[in-house]
Amino acid sequence: MPFNYLKPLLQPAESKIVLLILDGLGGLPVEPGGPTELEAANTPVMDRLASEGTLGQTIPIRPGITPGSGPAHLSLFGYDPLVYDIGRGALSASGVGMRLEVGDVAARGNFCTLDDDGNISDRRAGRISSEESLPLVERLQAVQIPGVQTEVRQVKEYRFAIVMRGEGLNPELEDTDPQRTGVPPLPVKASVPAAEPTAELFNRWVAEACKVLADQPKANGLTLRGFATHPGLEPYEEAYGLRAACIAVYPMYRGVSKLVGMDVIEFDGEYPEDEFNAAARVWDDYDFFFIHIKKTDSKGEDGDFEGKVDVIESVDRALPQLLALEPDVLIITGDHSTPSSMRTHSWHPVPFLLWAPSAARPDVQTQFGERACDMGGLGTISALDTMPLALAHAGRLNKYGA
Amino acid sequence: MPFNYLKPLLQPAESKIVLLILDGLGGLPVEPGGPTELEAANTPVMDRLASEGTLGQTIPIRPGITPGSGPAHLSLFGYDPLVYDIGRGALSASGVGMRLEVGDVAARGNFCTLDDDGNISDRRAGRISSEESLPLVERLQAVQIPGVQTEVRQVKEYRFAIVMRGEGLNPELEDTDPQRTGVPPLPVKASVPAAEPTAELFNRWVAEACKVLADQPKANGLTLRGFATHPGLEPYEEAYGLRAACIAVYPMYRGVSKLVGMDVIEFDGEYPEDEFNAAARVWDDYDFFFIHIKKTDSKGEDGDFEGKVDVIESVDRALPQLLALEPDVLIITGDHSTPSSMRTHSWHPVPFLLWAPSAARPDVQTQFGERACDMGGLGTISALDTMPLALAHAGRLNKYGA
Repeated sequence: MPFNYLKPLLQPAESKIVLLILDGLGGLPVEPGGPTELEAANTPVMDRLASEGTLGQTIPIRPGITPGSGPAHLSLFGYDPLVYDIGRGALSASGVGMRLEVGDVAARGNFCTLDDDGNISDRRAGRISSEESLPLVERLQAVQIPGVQTEVRQVKEYRFAIVMRGEGLNPELEDTDPQRTGVPPLPVKASVPAAEPTAELFNRWVAEACKVLADQPKANGLTLRGFATHPGLEPYEEAYGLRAACIAVYPMYRGVSKLVGMDVIEFDGEYPEDEFNAAARVWDDYDFFFIHIKKTDSKGEDGDFEGKVDVIESVDRALPQLLALEPDVLIITGDHSTPSSMRTHSWHPVPFLLWAPSAARPDVQTQFGERACDMGGLGTISALDTMPLALAHAGRLNKYGA
Repeated sequence: MPFNYLKPLLQPAESKIVLLILDGLGGLPVEPGGPTELEAANTPVMDRLASEGTLGQTIPIRPGITPGSGPAHLSLFGYDPLVYDIGRGALSASGVGMRLEVGDVAARGNFCTLDDDGNISDRRAGRISSEESLPLVERLQAVQIPGVQTEVRQVKEYRFAIVMRGEGLNPELEDTDPQRTGVPPLPVKASVPAAEPTAELFNRWVAEACKVLADQPKANGLTLRGFATHPGLEPYEEAYGLRAACIAVYPMYRGVSKLVGMDVIEFDGEYPEDEFNAAARVWDDYDFFFIHIKKTDSKGEDGDFEGKVDVIESVDRALPQLLALEPDVLIITGDHSTPSSMRTHSWHPVPFLLWAPSAARPDVQTQFGERACDMGGLGTISALDTMPLALAHAGRLNKYGA
């Protein structure tokens, strides 16, 4: 349960909340005194919202900690990632739409190439295409071992996800990818004695799977990693009283949303306007909309300052379409920073814009950018405070105590 | 104990600390770009103190949480209200000067009107006056049941407080006010099995009480709510080494002060100058003065922007009288926000002014207002940090570690 003091205060309301995440939004200047990506972007709409609303900056996990995408989103959703450790396997499986239940063990799988001695010669099976790997995934789906059920689904190219279901399974297992070539895949090994029977089951499954792949030129082996179970997170509707929709292009974000009980909305296209269209289509059915824009992060990781600026500007241009839906609360922020100068996620605080026409207290800031946010009216807050603030500004929280 | 790391650091000093609370001080603009109540008020004295001192803003409980007055004051006093849950009954009883000990069970009582079928026809007994209700409270004082002692005291109009004292009492009891008319009062019900004997004792008391009220036209019944015991808070002198005085007009604030071991100072009048006079009178006897101004909150709840401005200005005009006492530390803040535009308490951060001529680090702010406070030198802090900051600036805290 994300906040035990929050739940008794929840009160119903008709209000709509939008959490618009520009992945990796926070940035850095590329020259002394220069602007960050967000500051360089021409964002008249966000700047107007900044003038009317309140700015701040969030710490995704703890100061100095660079988050992965999973923990960063968990924080935004109100589940402290230092308390709820969800494995990458659980994210992957949920992300491709597999049913994952408490007690199941999920893992990510990679096809790999084994040489005649059984050593790995290519950890990604020559990066085979999704078309090539699909029939192989189908072969894996047919592999069953006694006592448990296994389900396998394609993720993309050389990657797949597996879920094992049965009595008394334990996800405390170590990755089988040795992270180098010239050695065989590791056996599945239990990190704790209680997981040994589960390790044995996975090893049996791997042995059978390798038999059905033996005739393959590239994908004749496999590795498993990120063993995890369903984290048992309290779903959004229970935790916050919100019917929540996820609008995201990438499986990983759909996965983490599903783990907190959001409905994943299907839609065509991959641009901000496509995502805002999807929100419009289901607007009446939900109270909360998590809308995820991936490309700010991708451009940051590419070291493409201008590309990241362009993505931010494309979101700004599409925003009027979202505002036309008249959300009561609109939060625009990132899950973490991805400065293009660093080409990777970073620990820097994340710009945060809270717009709620009837409830937000304005500060003196008039532009959405890192320097304005660090002097904003909300101060420097934890990303975990996002949901309580959203609920408060949406009139969904009663008074605490008399 | 509010802060276990603080106590070993306490050192004696001659310094005087004043915590001046303008209830519900924080506000909102009523038009885009307009001032809040505090920003609109002409406050030359507070502005001078803001220039000389340090500003900041406090989060009363947690971000997004709108506090009631009790929890908000506990926070200011350094007791986390999410840890120390004090019931309204305990506040009411203390507020009217009843002795409340650990193990006692206190509750708030309302007289109500019952029709011939025993159903409630008026939950507030026609809002009878204090004069009318006093003899009825005296009748209740005479009601005694075997095995426990009960004490009853008038609060105001149709409201009274009751304290039950005896062995093994348990306050986990449910309110008997059904919150509507046309139905009888509920019996006292235990929320946990261990409280069943206490429920039975209260039910017996209610039955006897109704007998002595039976002849009344308006107040022929009663309801009880907010069952609570003494929260067992460590008193101020022990926790902080401070002889503390409470100067407040309203019972509720006198009550919460008493629960943390403050002496409640009696005085005539209800204006800021009356309260500052009271402080002057007992200045030599105490180290710490909690002075509470209620009407900022009342005007906010009335939706009276100008009225709230007037109250703030009246405090500012009287301030020189307080400053003439030469406090070493003066903190001017609120317990929470009550924007007149919302007509109710809110979750917004609270403006905070720390003035300590020999110790405060000045920031660049020169006006006491929300926008200045959100950029103030103290940043955005928890209201729980108020007491450590007060003690530090008063030279009452030793170094931590060598």
